[in-house]
Amino acid sequence: MDLKAINLEEKFARITEHWSPKIIAQMNDTHFKLVKIQGEFVWHSHAETDEVFIVLAGAMRIALEEGGVDLKEGEMFVVPKGVAHKPVAVEECSIMVIEPAGTLNTGDAGGDMTVDAVEWI
Amino acid sequence: MDLKAINLEEKFARITEHWSPKIIAQMNDTHFKLVKIQGEFVWHSHAETDEVFIVLAGAMRIALEEGGVDLKEGEMFVVPKGVAHKPVAVEECSIMVIEPAGTLNTGDAGGDMTVDAVEWI
Repeated sequence: MDLKAINLEEKFARITEHWSPKIIAQMNDTHFKLVKIQGEFVWHSHAETDEVFIVLAGAMRIALEEGGVDLKEGEMFVVPKGVAHKPVAVEECSIMVIEPAGTLNTGDAGGDMTVDAVEWI
Repeated sequence: MDLKAINLEEKFARITEHWSPKIIAQMNDTHFKLVKIQGEFVWHSHAETDEVFIVLAGAMRIALEEGGVDLKEGEMFVVPKGVAHKPVAVEECSIMVIEPAGTLNTGDAGGDMTVDAVEWI
């Protein structure tokens, strides 16, 4: 057992690319990922799972077909499974995404922003 | 669908008791709980699940049989399933606990600190 605390700031310091999730922890079959985001992601949905967003620094918007949700530091949102969404951040924003292991960042949409093999940091 | 961000500070403001977890979100069968802790909890383990602790304000220690882990704000730890642990906080500490719905706070230990019906806030 690794007896070291996982420090979120130290982990974020190792992330240099936007929209490139990195795994920092696992609980059963659930992955905890850190992502730095800026700009617009692609519209997509996850047919099999809900997806949790927690904003740790900065601010973002999760665009939804029926409007959207603005999140700032210390706020979270659960996108229900099957619901189309598009994460957007005007300025760089640091987030935690929590979802089952193997969940693709682009869901059903695919495309250039897909990260097939998410690395641990 | 509730289109409101979940603000952690606002949720914590509604918690007045120590060691009394409140549910603020659900992802599939996983619950996200907020807890204010102070003092010593009971030694216990969860035979069926890992358990995630994230410190949002203050500091705590997760005592383990082989030592323990100190966590401060912005740090997290995953207690593996079956591993005996005892959360401790000298001063009040605000944490998020993430685990499957229905997981008892005192695990296999039972006793007075057990919260059978965890409420949503």
